[in-house]
Amino acid sequence: MKMFEVHSVKDAKMKMIEHFNDYRLENEEIHISKAVGRILDEDIYSRLDVPHFRRSTVDGFAVLAKDTYGANESLPAFLQVIGEVHMGKEADVIISPGKTAYVPTGGMIPSGADSVVMIEYTERLDEENIAIGRPTALKENIIDIGDDIKIDEKVLNRGSRIRPQDIGVLTSIGLDRVKLSKLPRISIISTGDEILAPSEEVKPGQIRDINTYTLAAMAEEAGCCVTNKIALQDEFEKLRDIVEESIDNNDIVIISGGSSVGTKDITSKVINSIGEPGVFVHGVAIKPGKPTILAKVKNKAVFGLPGQPVSAIVVFKVFVEYFIKHIQGIDTDIEYTVDAIFSSNIHSAQGKETYQMVTIEKDGGEYLAAPVYGKSGMISLMSRAAGYIKIEADKEGIVKGEKVKVTRI
Amino acid sequence: MKMFEVHSVKDAKMKMIEHFNDYRLENEEIHISKAVGRILDEDIYSRLDVPHFRRSTVDGFAVLAKDTYGANESLPAFLQVIGEVHMGKEADVIISPGKTAYVPTGGMIPSGADSVVMIEYTERLDEENIAIGRPTALKENIIDIGDDIKIDEKVLNRGSRIRPQDIGVLTSIGLDRVKLSKLPRISIISTGDEILAPSEEVKPGQIRDINTYTLAAMAEEAGCCVTNKIALQDEFEKLRDIVEESIDNNDIVIISGGSSVGTKDITSKVINSIGEPGVFVHGVAIKPGKPTILAKVKNKAVFGLPGQPVSAIVVFKVFVEYFIKHIQGIDTDIEYTVDAIFSSNIHSAQGKETYQMVTIEKDGGEYLAAPVYGKSGMISLMSRAAGYIKIEADKEGIVKGEKVKVTRI
Repeated sequence: MKMFEVHSVKDAKMKMIEHFNDYRLENEEIHISKAVGRILDEDIYSRLDVPHFRRSTVDGFAVLAKDTYGANESLPAFLQVIGEVHMGKEADVIISPGKTAYVPTGGMIPSGADSVVMIEYTERLDEENIAIGRPTALKENIIDIGDDIKIDEKVLNRGSRIRPQDIGVLTSIGLDRVKLSKLPRISIISTGDEILAPSEEVKPGQIRDINTYTLAAMAEEAGCCVTNKIALQDEFEKLRDIVEESIDNNDIVIISGGSSVGTKDITSKVINSIGEPGVFVHGVAIKPGKPTILAKVKNKAVFGLPGQPVSAIVVFKVFVEYFIKHIQGIDTDIEYTVDAIFSSNIHSAQGKETYQMVTIEKDGGEYLAAPVYGKSGMISLMSRAAGYIKIEADKEGIVKGEKVKVTRI
Repeated sequence: MKMFEVHSVKDAKMKMIEHFNDYRLENEEIHISKAVGRILDEDIYSRLDVPHFRRSTVDGFAVLAKDTYGANESLPAFLQVIGEVHMGKEADVIISPGKTAYVPTGGMIPSGADSVVMIEYTERLDEENIAIGRPTALKENIIDIGDDIKIDEKVLNRGSRIRPQDIGVLTSIGLDRVKLSKLPRISIISTGDEILAPSEEVKPGQIRDINTYTLAAMAEEAGCCVTNKIALQDEFEKLRDIVEESIDNNDIVIISGGSSVGTKDITSKVINSIGEPGVFVHGVAIKPGKPTILAKVKNKAVFGLPGQPVSAIVVFKVFVEYFIKHIQGIDTDIEYTVDAIFSSNIHSAQGKETYQMVTIEKDGGEYLAAPVYGKSGMISLMSRAAGYIKIEADKEGIVKGEKVKVTRI
């Protein structure tokens, strides 16, 4: 029997990048109120200074710093109050030596003033006079023009995911529309003579379709637009028609099921029948997920995922999410994990990058991670898991007490 | 001047829980295709066994295990092939000693058989006969009835966030609708005489409204339904009307701005004028974010957030997100962080829980975290930060080279 040539995870990813080096999503202009979580497709430069006037960071009195030098509680500095700045209004007083004006937090610093004394360090003597009990430094409690953002400064990078605070930056520089990568369009197809819709009554030999819903949900969480989700029987012609139509209308096509080398290795045949170069990886040294297919047809990415739900989920995480980031131009990504102590000994298949599902429990000040056992056909295995540990291909396993990093799943 | 009584973060959270101990969101029944990311408001028990028939985990031959005992490559076991199991069909052969049938991965195990030999370890001799080159154990390569999920087993817990794989579990047990907590309804109000909509032309003394958009985006990311976002001037009557209407129509009301103790401490006055018990925390030992207000009016939660964008974001993270989890019944939450080496020495204000924004950079095999400097009025500070480090109130700071845990922001 022909066994397929197995690639390492790293090699398989590299081949994917080689084949789709230039593939990028188109962009669209969107209002900032709809932009959170989306990927920026332009560098953003500020066209103005923020703030565009000097602001106070405290409630206090605008002064000339040198008027306060040497002041202390027993020998305070006395200043004449010549006015008050109102929020949202231009400061209409001018501070000269010996004079001061009240400024609220965020208020405009009157011209002439070069520092603000916090109200806590002042004492009102009468309508017109205050005493200041400690010196203030030059520019203290002042945000200068452009201190936050300077004109022509780059404030956001192309390829970054827009967070709530980035919306804040965009509003502060007066931008209300930005260019974003269009959502990757993805079609999810599950094949198998045994699968039925969740609402149907199953007979012996039949199971309810898990992958279509699970993978569609993963795709949405990964920021895709799921255009199509369909489960169908392993019929070459029908599958071929649907895959071809999906390729024409999407950036990514996922076919789960039918990719193991058995009597029914239909996925790779269907893909190769549609166009060149077709399947370029069939088989990856990953556990679970060995019978993974990576393909390119009509310049679109087609993924053949194992039918086993656990394998399908792991391969989606490792390859499909990686590809989604690539076509959006996201180059850096920090992995957020939780440190835990592993609670037992496990062996992993050497030569394969192994994804071990784990539960996490808090034990005093630290977390304990325990392996979730089960066969890769079991969906409950994924649901019981809080996350996974990646065991590199050159490691033989994990020993009890070893410190591990758990990634959320 | 009256200074407010400052609570520790922990105390303030406890007071919040005391006041809203019984507050829970209502629930609604939703189709599973719309349920990802939502919070389950019922325990889910399986009403059936998964799988409901014995399945093969490999492509191979269903056998009686004892027929293979002692088999090896030079002395294989010979079995007669009496049929083939088709995917999605009931197995219609019965395996007796000396007999076997082909079963694909996921196919139904014929009755009589108690093990499956992987096809790799078999050799087809002719139409009717195979040789098996190694022994197989009892139940090897078989998923038994209920192995994945047993009837009446609890599969998902109330208060858990539904992940893609949980959708898989729901479909596998034939459930297509579930009871979810309704989305928390939240109203975002920013006050200040200086703030204008992002599209307006600003004059000296005026700034564009940052908080409304930023906090609304945070609320959406935290799984809320933002019913209202409005920026308005510091006018008591107008603010009172809008806050009262918001309280009547939402679970949570956020008012940012106007909460520092200055000439215009309007937020607490507005809240207390609407109903009892009103403000129960005014001032928290947190940096940034000291002038935080926590209040209860007409049994709804009202948060007074500082007007400074950085403070508002931190207080939202620490208190509002905590409250959102509480009213959804989410009790456990694992914090995913990234380990990093701190790149400089910083002092923190003792007695205050300090949230230090940092950048993260990869340096060989490890991450370096560097503090982002800036005043709390600067929105660019948040945008430049990849995450934050929490410095406990009893610590004096962080020294260069110290290992820190960075939480994404």
